[in-house]
Amino acid sequence: MTGAVKLQPAAGVVTAFSAAETAAMEQALQAALKGPRGANPLVGAVVVGADGKQLVAGYHRGAGTAHAEADAIAQAAAVGLDLSGCTMVVTLEPCNHVGRTGPCTEAIIAAGITDVVYAVDDPHDPAAGGAATLRAAGVRVRSGLGADEALDLNRQWFEAVAAKRPFVTLHIAQTLDARIAAEDGTSQWISSPESLADNHGIRSRIDAILVGTQTVMVDNPRLTARDAAGNPAPKQPVRAVMGLRDIPEGAAIHGDDGLAVHLPTRDPREALSMLYSSGIRHVMVEGGSSILSSFLAAGLVDELIVYLAPTLLGSGTPALNGLGITSLPDAQQWEWDASDGGAVRTLGRDLRLHLRPQRHVALDHPPTRTAAEPAQGGY
Amino acid sequence: MTGAVKLQPAAGVVTAFSAAETAAMEQALQAALKGPRGANPLVGAVVVGADGKQLVAGYHRGAGTAHAEADAIAQAAAVGLDLSGCTMVVTLEPCNHVGRTGPCTEAIIAAGITDVVYAVDDPHDPAAGGAATLRAAGVRVRSGLGADEALDLNRQWFEAVAAKRPFVTLHIAQTLDARIAAEDGTSQWISSPESLADNHGIRSRIDAILVGTQTVMVDNPRLTARDAAGNPAPKQPVRAVMGLRDIPEGAAIHGDDGLAVHLPTRDPREALSMLYSSGIRHVMVEGGSSILSSFLAAGLVDELIVYLAPTLLGSGTPALNGLGITSLPDAQQWEWDASDGGAVRTLGRDLRLHLRPQRHVALDHPPTRTAAEPAQGGY
Repeated sequence: MTGAVKLQPAAGVVTAFSAAETAAMEQALQAALKGPRGANPLVGAVVVGADGKQLVAGYHRGAGTAHAEADAIAQAAAVGLDLSGCTMVVTLEPCNHVGRTGPCTEAIIAAGITDVVYAVDDPHDPAAGGAATLRAAGVRVRSGLGADEALDLNRQWFEAVAAKRPFVTLHIAQTLDARIAAEDGTSQWISSPESLADNHGIRSRIDAILVGTQTVMVDNPRLTARDAAGNPAPKQPVRAVMGLRDIPEGAAIHGDDGLAVHLPTRDPREALSMLYSSGIRHVMVEGGSSILSSFLAAGLVDELIVYLAPTLLGSGTPALNGLGITSLPDAQQWEWDASDGGAVRTLGRDLRLHLRPQRHVALDHPPTRTAAEPAQGGY
Repeated sequence: MTGAVKLQPAAGVVTAFSAAETAAMEQALQAALKGPRGANPLVGAVVVGADGKQLVAGYHRGAGTAHAEADAIAQAAAVGLDLSGCTMVVTLEPCNHVGRTGPCTEAIIAAGITDVVYAVDDPHDPAAGGAATLRAAGVRVRSGLGADEALDLNRQWFEAVAAKRPFVTLHIAQTLDARIAAEDGTSQWISSPESLADNHGIRSRIDAILVGTQTVMVDNPRLTARDAAGNPAPKQPVRAVMGLRDIPEGAAIHGDDGLAVHLPTRDPREALSMLYSSGIRHVMVEGGSSILSSFLAAGLVDELIVYLAPTLLGSGTPALNGLGITSLPDAQQWEWDASDGGAVRTLGRDLRLHLRPQRHVALDHPPTRTAAEPAQGGY
């Protein structure tokens, strides 16, 4: 995959970890999976008592909500649980910055927690120094436990951060035979009302939504986040249109809130760079076929959501129209993503499929692939 | 859907049914769903004691195995349970013919069962008369309870029986973007080993497998049923190739067991008629795109099994290449089929999707559909 970065476990000195801490890290990794993928990483935190007992587990529910550590501490406070002298086991280095939710280091120190075990360093500059801050306050800090699993948990997020580009969610609403419109261009609605509602829920949580000029011409979408009654969500994503053609003056996408932008490029990497410069950290690419295909071909998709309707068209617009792949061994490999409600969910009559790029297999000497073997009466 | 028949509840006099019988019929309908779809209908049976208690539930596990009634009676015998004086509640009229498994009427009478409640009449001539045989032996027989549900349970099977054609299972092994081969023709293997094994398991249970001449030319498949080690299953399906082109002499499909047949037609209806005349009652259509599409377009598919691999090709051979549909409102509607292990299963890294045609909505005056509305900035 292009733009891949080599992921490294936390650089801190690895010390011995107790069985209770190891078990807690496993639980924290599981808890992290409950959250949604996006601009923020999946993080889980478990607080362990002096006797090794797991007292409370927290996780991060997505941008704008409490971090996993703060979530766990708040849960403990809600039931009057004293965490002084306890160990916080967390899948990512606690943050040190005042964002929308306050620094976790402060909450940890205030709770009287004396030990912190985390898996991997936070790669962000603004957040760097969390471990140092904790140590300066007298907290014993160790890292590296569960580092491989924690890196894998947020592989795409680490990549996006390192590449200084937004996290990219790709959305496809298709029939069983992967058509996104019929021959005459009709496409409303391939998906169930429940899938549409799910999509609007994602829109209300991300920073930007992106389509191509062709989609604006053909479908004239609004791309706002709305509830079932059609009322706008409190938070609206930036509506980005990429492509070299002008956007018609009367196009619905303009709206009247100043959130529409035109990215005059056909290069997905350039489009992402423009969005990142505007502060966008999570973008959902909605279509059409050419835009979807260009992001996939460039290896710039971190999360794939497919709404699969139990219908067949047999012809019309295919979901994808070319990834530069000519032979099966070169097919893009994806893996099921169990985070955020599961890899496969039913939404009305549709299936919602959730995937992420398959783990990179780093090989010094990639296997030599021979030309496709002749048919051998194999099946 | 072409070839649709109007389904009628059993013609027998509908008498009152007890709450225990109604509850037992619901259980019998649930039990029936455990079986596989195919040449035989899904059938469930529950035996109710004189006190209304459900004693045992049976179901039919597919062609060549015990019918639901015999299954229930055998289960009772295995645990020494006396069924005399009990009521057999079953979703289909008990059979009266000596097939591979002996008549159910005989087993019911021998077990001392005094009452039979069934949902719908068996539409087969050979089996007709089960109710009459039971009555002649002094068994009290009533029918019509749960008739709508029981007809729906086996909609496709009733249609195939009425049309005197085999039951048709369609099999598609595809990527997420519904490609069944890459641009260079490579297609082995899109599916996981577990999906391939599942497919071979189906092959070993059906009467015939069907492909087009194009598939024989391109892939040169064997189409035998084999286990993971490559050993042939005890029961092999007839291997049918449809199309007007000659099959090359050295093609793997010929084999040496005399089970290969060439159906010199491009018409799926004619191909099914030829197979039915040879005693074939369940055929699995495997490909390629044109064959799959022709059966779907003709409304001749009773069951759809899609092996969905978490991979993307972006180009290559689409699963389907035309169903004569130009607009979204005309898309073929399918519904998830929970029978035989569920509508969605994981097979290795693949999803196995199981569907059947959506229920026909019989309308005296179908709604007038207007031309596709212009785009309205809807999404």
